[in-house]
Amino acid sequence: MAKPVLQEVTLADTHALAIGAGILGTGGGGNTYIGRVWLEHELKKRGGSIKIIPVDAVPDEALTVAIGGMGAPTVGIEKFPKGDEYQNAVKALETHAGQKMFALVIGEIGGSNALRPLICALQMGLPVVDGDGMGRAFPELQMDTFAIAGLSLTPMALSDVHGNVSILHQADSMYRVEAYARSLTIEMGGSASLAMPILKGKELKETIIKDTLTLARDMGDAVLQARKRGLEPSDDIASLGNGRVLFRGKITDVERRTTQGFARGKLKLAAFGEPNDQMEIVFQNENLVAWHNGEVVCTVPDLICIVSLEDGEPIGTEMLRYGLRVAVLGLPAPKELKTWAALEVVGPQAFGYADVNFRAMAGDLL
Amino acid sequence: MAKPVLQEVTLADTHALAIGAGILGTGGGGNTYIGRVWLEHELKKRGGSIKIIPVDAVPDEALTVAIGGMGAPTVGIEKFPKGDEYQNAVKALETHAGQKMFALVIGEIGGSNALRPLICALQMGLPVVDGDGMGRAFPELQMDTFAIAGLSLTPMALSDVHGNVSILHQADSMYRVEAYARSLTIEMGGSASLAMPILKGKELKETIIKDTLTLARDMGDAVLQARKRGLEPSDDIASLGNGRVLFRGKITDVERRTTQGFARGKLKLAAFGEPNDQMEIVFQNENLVAWHNGEVVCTVPDLICIVSLEDGEPIGTEMLRYGLRVAVLGLPAPKELKTWAALEVVGPQAFGYADVNFRAMAGDLL
Repeated sequence: MAKPVLQEVTLADTHALAIGAGILGTGGGGNTYIGRVWLEHELKKRGGSIKIIPVDAVPDEALTVAIGGMGAPTVGIEKFPKGDEYQNAVKALETHAGQKMFALVIGEIGGSNALRPLICALQMGLPVVDGDGMGRAFPELQMDTFAIAGLSLTPMALSDVHGNVSILHQADSMYRVEAYARSLTIEMGGSASLAMPILKGKELKETIIKDTLTLARDMGDAVLQARKRGLEPSDDIASLGNGRVLFRGKITDVERRTTQGFARGKLKLAAFGEPNDQMEIVFQNENLVAWHNGEVVCTVPDLICIVSLEDGEPIGTEMLRYGLRVAVLGLPAPKELKTWAALEVVGPQAFGYADVNFRAMAGDLL
Repeated sequence: MAKPVLQEVTLADTHALAIGAGILGTGGGGNTYIGRVWLEHELKKRGGSIKIIPVDAVPDEALTVAIGGMGAPTVGIEKFPKGDEYQNAVKALETHAGQKMFALVIGEIGGSNALRPLICALQMGLPVVDGDGMGRAFPELQMDTFAIAGLSLTPMALSDVHGNVSILHQADSMYRVEAYARSLTIEMGGSASLAMPILKGKELKETIIKDTLTLARDMGDAVLQARKRGLEPSDDIASLGNGRVLFRGKITDVERRTTQGFARGKLKLAAFGEPNDQMEIVFQNENLVAWHNGEVVCTVPDLICIVSLEDGEPIGTEMLRYGLRVAVLGLPAPKELKTWAALEVVGPQAFGYADVNFRAMAGDLL
């Protein structure tokens, strides 16, 4: 039944990819509508398709680099891309390393960050590896499988819409990379384009979460299929992600502020017709912890995905508003994010929730 | 009478250099006591001397790089250096450019920034060119003869005491270089180590203000000579700088705050025994404009230097305090800073003083 893995991305795939990546974004990763319009524009302008390769097709010693956007999603929907910022970042790293890239890597599969590497790859004539470093979206740079495995995040490049490119040449920790890049991102206007880390084929094979671009396409396809049949797609999405629907209801309150380079806040939901049956979710770009009537039911690194109830359209943290009718999905995170080493970096306590412990979802085998 | 130009710097020169550079710092450039202690420590530890070469000794195609500290002097006296931060910045640029440096250049001759290139040169076994890009100290990166001549300030490197090194690979304007580097300097704790710009020998010959390290040594020597004879050194210093003593008096008020990466403020002085004869000086790291009884008597780019009345010790903006007995000197800036192109970058209006026009000091031939 399942479609084969992606071998190329054409205009026929962009809608499904945007929906699936939006769901995996768990609120963040950048608005996929903007990413989709940009990707489709580039595909129409340049023709052709983007070649998608399995990680095993990357030679052990070849260089690859992950790319993605940095900044608050609330900024990203107001501050548009120019077009060449990702290329500028990749080319600066090629100059710095004195070597060309063999392929581009998706830094995070969530949100528009799934689509930006495709755009840059089309511009540069490079293939994209099927997979990513998060299996979702996370707000901070050290929160990927590459950093968790101890690989160096430097040299990394950050670029803006004015053609400015900064390279962090070396850093004493992965948290320092995040801090310095965040500071520059704020100076760049709250969003920036990132190329990081440079990975050899061998390192990539050992750390990437495989086939997540195909997963995004499949989730998006499921939503589009359900829409055609006039069905609510939430259960199909949850099933593809081995998870479940945590809550169905209406958003009753949103607190959101863009601060320190992030969109931070919380939202409240009430079940239809049962106003005392409530869910509360906190977010830092991405949804972090969900409480159902005061009890924790899902936490990072597991995915808390909010989709429009009727049509399964993913709702980013920048689009949350009073009155939206939504389903909240809980999907178990990829196993790479649930090791002890990973939970130190992406568990609830890494986000400041000292009293919240990660517990595997029912049925999740870790 | 004049001593010959400097050919090397040894322990015998450090005291005079620190005093002279402090005077030329016009309040900024970094506390020279700390710079002097560091330089003397390195000279004692490593032995030998630092070779000083005239700019004509640099081959046209050889690469040189200017170095100096960035940040507020008020931070620099509290946040000490580690020791290898300048080397780290220079080496990162060598890696990025794929070429070694032939010599180091003094970015600004004022304050401790005259001494830091000497320290780094000793560590790396490189010579230092006699001269600099400012003939004094200025608070912002674009305020040197290299930028005024339109030379690219990128790639530039910024490093901190933790071994972190950032490279700005390309920028759309010299003001952008300043803005992004300032932002990262603040993130780095308010002070950072800078290597910028990379200059070919030919470019350096066309833009450097020559022999200013020798001038700093000569000014310092004059102060030390006057001290030996028990004389007030202000007139000797002013004479060496072709300027004059603008005011003698006591500091009666200092307003100073460290904000946006700078030490900003103003001070008031009253003449001895004549409290209504007053001077007011505003500063942004360096002294910018001096009013004598309400009338402008000296402005950037001319040098407004404050020295201790009795012994000629230069007083940085970080050391200003109520009750100090000082002489205020006005020295005409090097002619390179008084072209129309230069005044757009370093004249009073570039610092926000819309109503203050630069006027050459009496006797200054431009």
